[in-house]
Amino acid sequence: MQLTKYTDYALRVLMYLAMQDKPDTKVQIKTISEKFGIPKNHLIKVVHHLGKENMIKTIRGKNGGIILSKAPSDIVVGQVVRKFEITLKPVNCEQPECHIQQICLLKPALFKAMEAFLTTLDQYTLADITKNQQCLRQCLLSQNTTELSES
Amino acid sequence: MQLTKYTDYALRVLMYLAMQDKPDTKVQIKTISEKFGIPKNHLIKVVHHLGKENMIKTIRGKNGGIILSKAPSDIVVGQVVRKFEITLKPVNCEQPECHIQQICLLKPALFKAMEAFLTTLDQYTLADITKNQQCLRQCLLSQNTTELSES
Repeated sequence: MQLTKYTDYALRVLMYLAMQDKPDTKVQIKTISEKFGIPKNHLIKVVHHLGKENMIKTIRGKNGGIILSKAPSDIVVGQVVRKFEITLKPVNCEQPECHIQQICLLKPALFKAMEAFLTTLDQYTLADITKNQQCLRQCLLSQNTTELSES
Repeated sequence: MQLTKYTDYALRVLMYLAMQDKPDTKVQIKTISEKFGIPKNHLIKVVHHLGKENMIKTIRGKNGGIILSKAPSDIVVGQVVRKFEITLKPVNCEQPECHIQQICLLKPALFKAMEAFLTTLDQYTLADITKNQQCLRQCLLSQNTTELSES
């Protein structure tokens, strides 16, 4: 059981934006693609979705790029997972169709477990998981791109 | 995020065995395959694994079949999930390789969430999720097989 790559990439994009020295630093999708070794076309979809969820915004123009559209402390990890996972049903009772699903006691147990998973992640904001901002920057700085340079 | 079919099938096999009227009722894999619409070759792998985990045993011979090898109250749902899921790492930091994984604060948050998921399932035994045994039997009885007939 694992989060989809799609959610994973969304979280990496948000973390990358949150670890910038200045919150208004515009970041190119290409840079994030290179930093994390994620194909750019996958990131474009993720970035588009993050925009629709009002978590980031795109600044157009020559020196454009993406930035967070709210404070990292206002972006909850559990909410990102809820928005990006294709399904949060812990099992698929329809395929193959399970004939006991109406009275199944496993199903509510699994849903309770999934809720515990998500509730745990609701305790973390993007600010919490990037509070070691400087370390994160240094870690990625060694890979040499402009967006992460210290001012 | 969803459990694999493999785990799902393992749980369905265990539930089917636990809902039998008599605990020593030997069940054919073919019957479970028909009841749940699961391809028999998939079930054979699952049943083999359940045997290796000492959760079921196979009785050979003309009237052979599979039975639980311990009481339903001794089989913990969380343990089944731990044994059958291919991975319980909530994300794959190696593919594509994530360069911040050594200092990443998202990772421990996700692992804590996964632990909450499993800990919740540790609260349920096979006996708990089949305590409506009679209802379950009736529900599947309508599909007409011998193993589920009331004695």
